[in-house]
Amino acid sequence: MPKTHQIGLIGLAVMGQNLVLNMLAKGFSVAVYNRTFSKTEEFIAGLPPVTALAGARSIEEFVELLAKPHKIMLMVKAGQPVDAILNELLPHLAPGDIVIDGGNSFFTDTQRRSRQLADRGIHFIGMGVSGGEEGALHGPSLMPGGERFAYEAIAPIYTRIAAQVADGPCCAYVGPDGAGHYVKMVHNGIEYGDMQLISEAYYILKKALHLSASELHEVFARWNQGVLNSYLIEITGDIFLQQDESTGKPLVEIIQDKAGQKGTGKWTSQSALDLGVPVPTITEAVFARCMSAYKEERVAAAPLLAGPEKPYQGDNQALIDAIHDALYASKICSYAQGFALLKAAGETYGWQLNSGDIALLWRGGCIIRAQFLDRIKEAFTDNPELANLLVAPYFRDELSRLQKNWRLVATTCKELGIPVPAISASLDYYDSYRQAVLPANLLQAQRDYFGAHTYERLDRPGTFHTQWQKSDLK
Amino acid sequence: MPKTHQIGLIGLAVMGQNLVLNMLAKGFSVAVYNRTFSKTEEFIAGLPPVTALAGARSIEEFVELLAKPHKIMLMVKAGQPVDAILNELLPHLAPGDIVIDGGNSFFTDTQRRSRQLADRGIHFIGMGVSGGEEGALHGPSLMPGGERFAYEAIAPIYTRIAAQVADGPCCAYVGPDGAGHYVKMVHNGIEYGDMQLISEAYYILKKALHLSASELHEVFARWNQGVLNSYLIEITGDIFLQQDESTGKPLVEIIQDKAGQKGTGKWTSQSALDLGVPVPTITEAVFARCMSAYKEERVAAAPLLAGPEKPYQGDNQALIDAIHDALYASKICSYAQGFALLKAAGETYGWQLNSGDIALLWRGGCIIRAQFLDRIKEAFTDNPELANLLVAPYFRDELSRLQKNWRLVATTCKELGIPVPAISASLDYYDSYRQAVLPANLLQAQRDYFGAHTYERLDRPGTFHTQWQKSDLK
Repeated sequence: MPKTHQIGLIGLAVMGQNLVLNMLAKGFSVAVYNRTFSKTEEFIAGLPPVTALAGARSIEEFVELLAKPHKIMLMVKAGQPVDAILNELLPHLAPGDIVIDGGNSFFTDTQRRSRQLADRGIHFIGMGVSGGEEGALHGPSLMPGGERFAYEAIAPIYTRIAAQVADGPCCAYVGPDGAGHYVKMVHNGIEYGDMQLISEAYYILKKALHLSASELHEVFARWNQGVLNSYLIEITGDIFLQQDESTGKPLVEIIQDKAGQKGTGKWTSQSALDLGVPVPTITEAVFARCMSAYKEERVAAAPLLAGPEKPYQGDNQALIDAIHDALYASKICSYAQGFALLKAAGETYGWQLNSGDIALLWRGGCIIRAQFLDRIKEAFTDNPELANLLVAPYFRDELSRLQKNWRLVATTCKELGIPVPAISASLDYYDSYRQAVLPANLLQAQRDYFGAHTYERLDRPGTFHTQWQKSDLK
Repeated sequence: MPKTHQIGLIGLAVMGQNLVLNMLAKGFSVAVYNRTFSKTEEFIAGLPPVTALAGARSIEEFVELLAKPHKIMLMVKAGQPVDAILNELLPHLAPGDIVIDGGNSFFTDTQRRSRQLADRGIHFIGMGVSGGEEGALHGPSLMPGGERFAYEAIAPIYTRIAAQVADGPCCAYVGPDGAGHYVKMVHNGIEYGDMQLISEAYYILKKALHLSASELHEVFARWNQGVLNSYLIEITGDIFLQQDESTGKPLVEIIQDKAGQKGTGKWTSQSALDLGVPVPTITEAVFARCMSAYKEERVAAAPLLAGPEKPYQGDNQALIDAIHDALYASKICSYAQGFALLKAAGETYGWQLNSGDIALLWRGGCIIRAQFLDRIKEAFTDNPELANLLVAPYFRDELSRLQKNWRLVATTCKELGIPVPAISASLDYYDSYRQAVLPANLLQAQRDYFGAHTYERLDRPGTFHTQWQKSDLK
């Protein structure tokens, strides 16, 4: 058994296993460790004999299997388990070693761990990994953050196992300390937005037009041929074809409408709130999952709360086309919010993020992969200082073209009583962003009235406070 | 100088000063301390000589001025300053003493401080104080959290200085440790929602109907006579009458449309995200303030982004009436979200919050005081287990009556390109809550497809995973 495996991986859940298989397939030698050794044995026993793979019974044995400086990837649950395994690892590590955390760690944890390991001369890479099980196996999107030279030392492995697109691998250095995990977090926030927008499109097609599963399949399959072309639209098309074996019905109709979540969407909204960046589409997507979980309350409320109950009476194909446009326009707004958040985070945390490069990282391998990301890459290449994606010439023109249908969908849903929180929030984001003047002047007047919070004036600099007069007319 | 002042107060900013004046006016003797003694001197010098008031130069002297067990209220900036002053105070305190934090502390800080002081036998009360400067002086709304018997010891003072309404004082025990500060935080989140909804109503009246400031005054003054009767509607009416001395124009038109914020609205949204409770109206209100701060970007975007640019062509009074109804309906949703959040927080943190009592606390003194809170109190008195305010008979009927005009406003704004993020989000909240089935079944199918996250079925218990088939039609 060679004692110079090129990389070690700790944590043999499905994602970890598939990354190991991916590395082996690309010709790298890998040592693995899992807290429960039987899982390691099972994993190895399930493979044809490969000399490039070794399983260790202990952390000590594991580290000894690795070439120096040690390169060790953690694929364990985010949070306390990462700290626990780091504490176990540390006595066996030496200055110059590189530890890569491939879990969905919160970026401030990654920042803290980077400092802790740096104190001992050990390099820490917080690496976002997207693409689910299949991506891990065949080529994920990788978002590494940490010290650049430490990344360079592991780049030969990770650029090889990453998804490959026309422009190269979906793996490139993102920025210092927590930058990689931050970018992954925003990726997931955008993924929440995409999934919610698609769900709303599906809901309108179902509630207003009563499309069958096979008709829904056709709509999404067709949409996947155009500007909406993306992994999520593609699998949505597939989903409508899947039959349930026990009932013979389309499986999607048998699935409970309570969505789970693991926290990265929520973190995106919470971080945006901290940084003062509006991300309403993403946040409505998170809240929509919360609302779906209130199943029992909704069932009880449904017969009690009045709605308009009138059928859609317009042209079906016109509405289908309008939904396409509303979905696309809302998606542009959602990405605009995500990239605006990345911009603010980069400035706040000193990361110098490159938005165009990030768009490329997401071009393949990950859940939000889409043709559309090429346009985003172009927008930021044309103007690296772009304030917001909405004002990039390509998207500006698209939105100008789309807005009529977008408004039609929003108004139709409001008239019919169909909830479309993410589509609505996207349109309000667009309409807010294009207002030179918003009504916050009244809000500032209120704040100064009751709390002496002061206000600024339009006509001269400074801050002002007024002794507001009570009206006699009360 | 009596050495047995009934209560001590630390921190003589405006709120602290006004609370002291309020206590003195109600006949209590007060010792005060401020880090900068000159401020204490100035404060005392500005008053007619009162034997019931004493200023201390040092913490030690301050504590000695107080009757035992010491009762000390902190009115210092939330965050680190509270810990700093507690560290200074602690050596001078004895078991049985009571410290009251009247700032906008984050509730987890209050929980931590409660434990720290409890270790030394000292009782800590986290007290939400609302009402701004004027409330502090004449009667604020007070939301005390901590040990009940410790609250009972200070209740004679605080129930006297609080706002008084028909049902009694706006001060009552809320719950253990951080409960008071949590309730204050949600109060502020609701305040954000109210202010944003009013600002949107103003914006529609301005953009669609071009109402003048005096017409706006008339509208809000009239609204204040009806179901919307509240402090914020009242001062909004006042605001439109205020003239700017230097230009002669209505002052509101001269005020910069960039809103400030101090964090409690943001905390409400962040906590709701943690607890999985949808609060879209409040969150859109926070994001709207963030969006307003992007003034330069908005000014640059305004000529670039296309909008519908068509005038409103309907009946003016009909739209004004519809805006009234939309504002009222949206406000009901915003409060429903706030109370749903309180319910979840009470369950999560073991606080046993009484929603009806909380509604009463807000009936007077605070910024969101409104007639409407009587209806909320009644709803929770009728049914303490009420799942959501929307399904209380009174509000259910109101929403049924209001929804037509609410939808009219939402659709009109979407057609005209007027952003109304909080009104839209409220309507989508209502329409979501009344869906027995939401499209989250598709979302769960997607999650199972790409991440093997499993799903539940409608027809039998358990969790399931499917090997989803790729379609040939891609």
